[in-house]
Amino acid sequence: MSDSLNRTIPLNYFFITHLYTTTMKEPVKAVPHVVFYPRESIEQVEEGYQLAPKFDDQGLIVCVTQDASSGVILMVGYMNAEALIRTIETGEAHYWSRSRQILWHKGATSGFVQHVEDLFIDDDQDAIWLRVSVSGSGASCHVGYRSCFYRKMPITNNHLNNQRLVYTEAEKTFDPKRIYGDTLNPTQL
Amino acid sequence: MSDSLNRTIPLNYFFITHLYTTTMKEPVKAVPHVVFYPRESIEQVEEGYQLAPKFDDQGLIVCVTQDASSGVILMVGYMNAEALIRTIETGEAHYWSRSRQILWHKGATSGFVQHVEDLFIDDDQDAIWLRVSVSGSGASCHVGYRSCFYRKMPITNNHLNNQRLVYTEAEKTFDPKRIYGDTLNPTQL
Repeated sequence: MSDSLNRTIPLNYFFITHLYTTTMKEPVKAVPHVVFYPRESIEQVEEGYQLAPKFDDQGLIVCVTQDASSGVILMVGYMNAEALIRTIETGEAHYWSRSRQILWHKGATSGFVQHVEDLFIDDDQDAIWLRVSVSGSGASCHVGYRSCFYRKMPITNNHLNNQRLVYTEAEKTFDPKRIYGDTLNPTQL
Repeated sequence: MSDSLNRTIPLNYFFITHLYTTTMKEPVKAVPHVVFYPRESIEQVEEGYQLAPKFDDQGLIVCVTQDASSGVILMVGYMNAEALIRTIETGEAHYWSRSRQILWHKGATSGFVQHVEDLFIDDDQDAIWLRVSVSGSGASCHVGYRSCFYRKMPITNNHLNNQRLVYTEAEKTFDPKRIYGDTLNPTQL
């Protein structure tokens, strides 16, 4: 690894390295890990080649996850540094569960793993877009639908005399009770 | 308007009504406005027909905006209550600009107005997905690209020996200096 990379390796790099090396039984040859570069200028962040994500004051970055084949938006989630690193290194989507306050390997319970085909970052590097294909039923929503966005709100006030959401998925893809049992529902009022 | 609706009209309804009626020269017949219902139960929020968005502690809800024809994610923005109401009522995307701290009618400066074809809300109603067609050049990114997500990060650590972002748009769609002049750059370090 070059000196220039060494100078920009953040704390979480050491955390992940330590985690890997202390859980393996045999000493292993070092493998490269994701590097987050420090954010030094607008030009670097917007027009450079360095991954320099901006985490918010909760340590999170928002992530839009899209079904790669249909183009449908499956969900909006949040990643902390570790979730983003694991997503890049494993090719499977990881998030930070805000309701459970844990690292969340999507599909670990349901089997509906999200395999990442592309990971984009936006201009100011405070948002992620994943294009994924989903294992199993292809669902990503804990309520049982394929997408979390299974309802739409009609546009323009022609529709507002009888305002109501319109369902865009006719039926659930799976039975959430059977898959999740009595796991805490992540929805909060 | 029914009694049941009257009981659930939030403060911002009165704000918008007042704004409209005090800026018009002639008294006008009342038109229906967007209603945000109070969040009363998980079942109502997840499986009901009532629009009951959850704004965060900054008063904002995240919004994913997608090009309706290509499926590309153009941007991730944030809406306050007024921006969401105006988006629904006008069919043109409005956001809350976190850098400028103002209501932001997207395209007001650049001409690249986002015309909303569909507005979805997610299971727990804390995220919006817009499918839009964009006026003019079709661009939505202040840096000049069509999408804010013009770079991707290669997946898996096979690529990490020489980690760098990969551009997915070959050139800018417009010259941001010509369109925005010396307007404040919204990117913050």
